[in-house]
Amino acid sequence: GSALAQSATPMDPLPSWNEGKSKAAIVEFVERVTDQSSPDFVPVAERIATFDNDGTLWSEQPLYFQGLYALDRVRKLAPDQPEWSNTEPFQSVLKGDLKGVMATGMPAIEKLIFATHADISGEEFQTSVRDWLATAKHPQTGLPFTKMIFQPMLELMAYLRANDFKVYIVTGGGIDFVRVFSEGTYEVPPEQVVGSSLDAKFEMTNGIPTILKTGKLDFIDDKAGKPVGIYRHIGRRPIFAAGNSDGDLQMLQYTTIPSDAKDNKPGFGLLVHHTDARREWAYDRDSHIGKLEKALDDAPQQGWLIVDMKDDWSKIYP
Amino acid sequence: GSALAQSATPMDPLPSWNEGKSKAAIVEFVERVTDQSSPDFVPVAERIATFDNDGTLWSEQPLYFQGLYALDRVRKLAPDQPEWSNTEPFQSVLKGDLKGVMATGMPAIEKLIFATHADISGEEFQTSVRDWLATAKHPQTGLPFTKMIFQPMLELMAYLRANDFKVYIVTGGGIDFVRVFSEGTYEVPPEQVVGSSLDAKFEMTNGIPTILKTGKLDFIDDKAGKPVGIYRHIGRRPIFAAGNSDGDLQMLQYTTIPSDAKDNKPGFGLLVHHTDARREWAYDRDSHIGKLEKALDDAPQQGWLIVDMKDDWSKIYP
Ligand SMILES: [Ca+2]
Ligand SMILES: [Ca+2]
Repeated sequence: GSALAQSATPMDPLPSWNEGKSKAAIVEFVERVTDQSSPDFVPVAERIATFDNDGTLWSEQPLYFQGLYALDRVRKLAPDQPEWSNTEPFQSVLKGDLKGVMATGMPAIEKLIFATHADISGEEFQTSVRDWLATAKHPQTGLPFTKMIFQPMLELMAYLRANDFKVYIVTGGGIDFVRVFSEGTYEVPPEQVVGSSLDAKFEMTNGIPTILKTGKLDFIDDKAGKPVGIYRHIGRRPIFAAGNSDGDLQMLQYTTIPSDAKDNKPGFGLLVHHTDARREWAYDRDSHIGKLEKALDDAPQQGWLIVDMKDDWSKIYP
Repeated sequence: GSALAQSATPMDPLPSWNEGKSKAAIVEFVERVTDQSSPDFVPVAERIATFDNDGTLWSEQPLYFQGLYALDRVRKLAPDQPEWSNTEPFQSVLKGDLKGVMATGMPAIEKLIFATHADISGEEFQTSVRDWLATAKHPQTGLPFTKMIFQPMLELMAYLRANDFKVYIVTGGGIDFVRVFSEGTYEVPPEQVVGSSLDAKFEMTNGIPTILKTGKLDFIDDKAGKPVGIYRHIGRRPIFAAGNSDGDLQMLQYTTIPSDAKDNKPGFGLLVHHTDARREWAYDRDSHIGKLEKALDDAPQQGWLIVDMKDDWSKIYP
């Protein structure tokens, strides 16, 4: 009929995904949950999708980019902190000795986080991150960090949104850090970012309403913390979750494993597997960043899609 | 012209608001921030509105309705807790001695909260609240609690949504409690509810992903906690905030007072003043529930609208 004659081939919503079983599995799921005649149809209000950030939406080597921000911030603040020149971990940072920093362990890392993320107002922190993102370059690629995002994942988020999903970022990184660029870079508004946080308090400072980030850890949105962060912020279980490491294991369990015998809500789990040493990095079980082991082992049994960056993606960065 | 001739009088978006300065102030603000040619135009993404719940969207006398839920829950659980018959505050609850409960003070109230809200999975808690709301009646009006909501405020939220505001509830009450009915009662989805919370943890229990509410207080979303809750959940300052008590003072400050000399974002603060002893309740400075004193005193100077329930509303409940 004329209606059919008029309908052109629809535009490919995932042009940077090579044809194959990964792309087919994603499209099949989205069509199934949005087809009113399907037994797996999911109402719009419940189409929640959650994406990890580091290693899932952008690169994370040789160090989480927020870690690189912290190191640059130490260098920037150092002139006002003379005692740092002989105090660890600052001393090692200032000498450019990253291994020395790492060797000082978790308490040192926490000191770095507090020195660079706390005792500052929310607005000042935002400005600092925004300024850094505008000028900082990745030590190996020379690219601005917001250009080291994964084009296929941008397309996937846009495809889900076009199908009335509400797309969230659920990151082990700092919620305040990611919110600075989430809207401009990923089209994810700040209120759809869940992440780790320091405590904050509200004060009227000289008559000005101020949110002050304090030096106390509030919440770590990683591993078993991810479902808790989702529960707190969203209050519904996602039906689609994407990650790249064992930090996402529990989020994928929460998304895809039925909560009781009557629960027949469909759920899709996706793992980005870093397999492309030429165009990006290749790592999994032995990496100190983005270690992927347990989730990789569980994926076949749980039916989680393992995306092979090398084979499945025709393009990495935009 | 014919275009003008065709344009009928637009439907009144606030039919339960009497004509007068309150209604006019609301309409004037909404028209101003949504008019592209106005210097106060606010882009859609930044049109965040936050509403307190108890006393702002529904009644709160003689006790917060969540408190009445807790008392009913104690009665329901009592057969399995024989020691409650001679332990305060449970003993007083079971005797129906509300004054006795109150007299035992905050530690007793906390005991009640933990006994009725903790050591339970998120899903079990939801079911319990849903069942209670379906059958419980208010001790004085005999109405189901979800019928004791304010029709004018429903219209106000719908009016804001029609003007592309994202409407949130920011409640001192429990986030998990309010989320059970927010979508059905107020058209506010669970992800747009901010509230007080207990800690939660995620576990795989016999292979089932489970969120367990624990007996540790996580966050009190009241007074200076409200701007912090907004900062955490939304990550932007609202441009419209409505409350009814001193618990909302800081939220109104955060919404309406410029954050620096360059900040010219418009902000609207609204206080529901309970002045109608005949149709609802009349109380403010001396009330043990919903005490309104400092915010009432500050309102004229800050330009906050004080809504007089008796004079401004032609209808209270739907
Ligand atoms: Ca990751
Ligand atoms: Ca209130």
